[in-house]
Amino acid sequence: MSSSSSKQNRGNFFEDFAVGQTIAHATPRTITGADATLYTALYGSRFVVQSSDAYARAIGFPGTPLDDLLVFHMVFGKTVPDISLNAIANLGYAECVFHAPVFAGDTVTVTSEVIGVKENSNGKTGVVYVRTTGRNQRDEIILSFVRWVMVRKADPASAAPDVDVPDLETVTTITTAPASFSRLKLDAWSNTLSGSPHRWDDYDIGEKIDHVDGSTIEEAEHQLATRLYQNTAKIHFNQHTEGEGRFGRRLVYGGHIISMARALSFNGLANAFHILVINGGQHVAPCFAGDTVYAWSEIIDKVAFDDTTDAGALRIRTVAVKNQAASHYPGAIVDDSGKRTYAEGVVLDIDYWAAIPR
Amino acid sequence: MSSSSSKQNRGNFFEDFAVGQTIAHATPRTITGADATLYTALYGSRFVVQSSDAYARAIGFPGTPLDDLLVFHMVFGKTVPDISLNAIANLGYAECVFHAPVFAGDTVTVTSEVIGVKENSNGKTGVVYVRTTGRNQRDEIILSFVRWVMVRKADPASAAPDVDVPDLETVTTITTAPASFSRLKLDAWSNTLSGSPHRWDDYDIGEKIDHVDGSTIEEAEHQLATRLYQNTAKIHFNQHTEGEGRFGRRLVYGGHIISMARALSFNGLANAFHILVINGGQHVAPCFAGDTVYAWSEIIDKVAFDDTTDAGALRIRTVAVKNQAASHYPGAIVDDSGKRTYAEGVVLDIDYWAAIPR
Amino acid sequence: MSSSSSKQNRGNFFEDFAVGQTIAHATPRTITGADATLYTALYGSRFVVQSSDAYARAIGFPGTPLDDLLVFHMVFGKTVPDISLNAIANLGYAECVFHAPVFAGDTVTVTSEVIGVKENSNGKTGVVYVRTTGRNQRDEIILSFVRWVMVRKADPASAAPDVDVPDLETVTTITTAPASFSRLKLDAWSNTLSGSPHRWDDYDIGEKIDHVDGSTIEEAEHQLATRLYQNTAKIHFNQHTEGEGRFGRRLVYGGHIISMARALSFNGLANAFHILVINGGQHVAPCFAGDTVYAWSEIIDKVAFDDTTDAGALRIRTVAVKNQAASHYPGAIVDDSGKRTYAEGVVLDIDYWAAIPR
Repeated sequence: MSSSSSKQNRGNFFEDFAVGQTIAHATPRTITGADATLYTALYGSRFVVQSSDAYARAIGFPGTPLDDLLVFHMVFGKTVPDISLNAIANLGYAECVFHAPVFAGDTVTVTSEVIGVKENSNGKTGVVYVRTTGRNQRDEIILSFVRWVMVRKADPASAAPDVDVPDLETVTTITTAPASFSRLKLDAWSNTLSGSPHRWDDYDIGEKIDHVDGSTIEEAEHQLATRLYQNTAKIHFNQHTEGEGRFGRRLVYGGHIISMARALSFNGLANAFHILVINGGQHVAPCFAGDTVYAWSEIIDKVAFDDTTDAGALRIRTVAVKNQAASHYPGAIVDDSGKRTYAEGVVLDIDYWAAIPR
Repeated sequence: MSSSSSKQNRGNFFEDFAVGQTIAHATPRTITGADATLYTALYGSRFVVQSSDAYARAIGFPGTPLDDLLVFHMVFGKTVPDISLNAIANLGYAECVFHAPVFAGDTVTVTSEVIGVKENSNGKTGVVYVRTTGRNQRDEIILSFVRWVMVRKADPASAAPDVDVPDLETVTTITTAPASFSRLKLDAWSNTLSGSPHRWDDYDIGEKIDHVDGSTIEEAEHQLATRLYQNTAKIHFNQHTEGEGRFGRRLVYGGHIISMARALSFNGLANAFHILVINGGQHVAPCFAGDTVYAWSEIIDKVAFDDTTDAGALRIRTVAVKNQAASHYPGAIVDDSGKRTYAEGVVLDIDYWAAIPR
Repeated sequence: MSSSSSKQNRGNFFEDFAVGQTIAHATPRTITGADATLYTALYGSRFVVQSSDAYARAIGFPGTPLDDLLVFHMVFGKTVPDISLNAIANLGYAECVFHAPVFAGDTVTVTSEVIGVKENSNGKTGVVYVRTTGRNQRDEIILSFVRWVMVRKADPASAAPDVDVPDLETVTTITTAPASFSRLKLDAWSNTLSGSPHRWDDYDIGEKIDHVDGSTIEEAEHQLATRLYQNTAKIHFNQHTEGEGRFGRRLVYGGHIISMARALSFNGLANAFHILVINGGQHVAPCFAGDTVYAWSEIIDKVAFDDTTDAGALRIRTVAVKNQAASHYPGAIVDDSGKRTYAEGVVLDIDYWAAIPR
């Protein structure tokens, strides 16, 4: 007696999503100091608060907080089997708020709510908007973000749902410091140990920073990273199928590029130690093993916190490019109609608020 | 005054093994949470009990137990310098019992007893059977298994020992839950968090499960894994010699494929959270960097535990194949004489009991 | 309003260094057990004291000490942005003393003093000598070493400083055991668990040891290692620029080769569990991904400690070679004028004292 099983997860299709639906994602994850170590080995990040337990304690943390993007990738990874296993494209991010620091040993559990659906005119695909929330073992929200993805329909003949597209902020307004900052003693901040004398007051709106260094991607590296995040998107791991696919090779997880760009940004933004909000982000072009990634940033806004004179926020746009230096700041060109096109080689355009001592 | 040393370990040859001999292996190993993290990065395993400390505690463990196969590889690795440094082939495994869970911080010490020897008719090689036992720092047995390897003779002219081949079980009988299960509270098991609604009662004998996904091996990945296990077999690490050898390249450690297949099996067997016994296993063909591994499984038996209604055991045969999907369940063909031959592309055939909540 | 930033670290040039100057390096680093685990995965090191917590405790350590070279690389990495970002060559090491063991959780902070400068006759470059000191979170010195590097001048027309070249020991005199040994109980040392019966008394001055095994370098491996150490030297990471450079490819961090050679040396020196002093070292030729590294050692001196009969020191010269076995002990040839040239394939020549039980 032999039978074929249907116990596998085949992922959700466009018809499977309805506005208001809540999805509890599987495989809660305890994030440890070892994840942080491997993250350092993967990206070479040098932000001092995440590197030195002694330094983190000196400025009032109970120990090194985990890198914000490590937490982001862990939360994101959980959503893949339910949200984007049948996705054609990861279209964008918005309203990504880092609500509370995460420390080694915290266990993250993730849910998503469907907040929008819109079938495409071709009748074969649609766009799904979800708001994803990560909580720690005390049920405190540590991260929430919206993303939208293009997903295949299982049956092109199925009826289109009512169009429901959420209103999303293009930029989150920052006025006060995060609650966790009330415990910080930023007067103990050492520019010598952080690696830069440049604080909030030293950055000007409009200032552009070439992060100088380039870093070449290896297959083993992006695979290790993406599996560390328990992200199961097939396109990153399977050369047998991808060799026959659109690019002829495995696609690097877009979040890997975000982390590479953030690590490179240390050279010029060493004191911008904590990401508060990612206002939005776009993967402009795919990356592959062998590509060398560079980055540059522009300071597009800055706010002093209402409630503390110790720190402020910089709104930073970081652009990553591949196989060319970023010294000429390649980016988007907006034409008369408002359409953005990107210069050759741009792979990532991300807009975020980061906290930095004053 | 200069002299050549003979302080190196050159490994044992067939003549060095005698039935009844006990070998204490060097380099006891403290296995940590960092090993578990790196294991996740290497294989992308998503079994919830090994991923979430909070979940593991909720069902009665003191914390996340280490992945069974991580422990297996660590114990196996210890035996290589004494047992298989001069091995031509790793012929098989049997009676591999996971006696007790292992937790981060436990130190594993390993011994082996020679339980059989049989010289081959060519007079140049012989088969050695050893039973290997891993113990924790409280001297509790955590793992034992038999394996047999073909080993070179140092001197073809040396006399053949008496043939002594052990009787080995082809399948271990399971009746009761492991002792550690008496502390578990499997009524707290969450299908939502584990990623699957399918429990013991839902699996049928004869059911075949295609695990769908494929994963491509990189040189850096299998080398990192095999060194993590302190496995010193030369064939995995030395392109200078292997480039001139039988395959022209480094051979991937067989255990790496077992772990890949187990991680892939999550997609269809997500609740089968603990390996109780590996009844037997065979590395049907070698794997190399660049190969993409897929897997499928068949439920070949199931037993309810005598002493608890919370869980039962599934006997699972998992077959890994390379560079082809597993959707057509390629496996062994047994001809009239009982001889098994394997379909092209099969690389691993492993038969094990796993515990799963009811 | 848009402006180009000069907030990046461009590194120091020859003119920026003056004898007597002290440089506090950025990014103090908490070294954890996860760093040790990744180190094992990168090099396959099997020295028992660093592998087993239970063994380390049995001989009197509070737990496994971190591998000496892991600590070295971490301290070295900190100095790169200030000392060698514009270096043309890393010329040598001397007086590298491991003052105290480092344990998981210790935070290392690093400073360097400029102890010598000498402009080269071409007027374009100069040699800078620095003494680097690593301290733990209790401000205890754990490591100090001298290195000298050739650094570009920013302006070839700038005046040459007075020549000031430090007197450096070619070999550090060892008479007593390190202070930390007073807590050790080396009578509990087990040759069985350490993997070798050979102790201090068994090694003869002049004895040469072929470490037998070879290990092939992958790009992902040396990049992971070098980023783990937060070493930012561009030449290791950027194929886009290095592809156009002197070698056409990324250069492997020299310290990666030192660690490979030390791990290989286990096979013949398994009981030499702790490096006391690196008297000197030279990177004879560069290594690249794809190279297979072998090593051999010579015992060049031995001393019994004055203050304990439990252990002594061996002075060991380890030579690493690439793409050839080390069985013929390829090394330096010293001609009549005292000039050393190296046999083809030699990549490293390092001279160190290691402690070993008697």
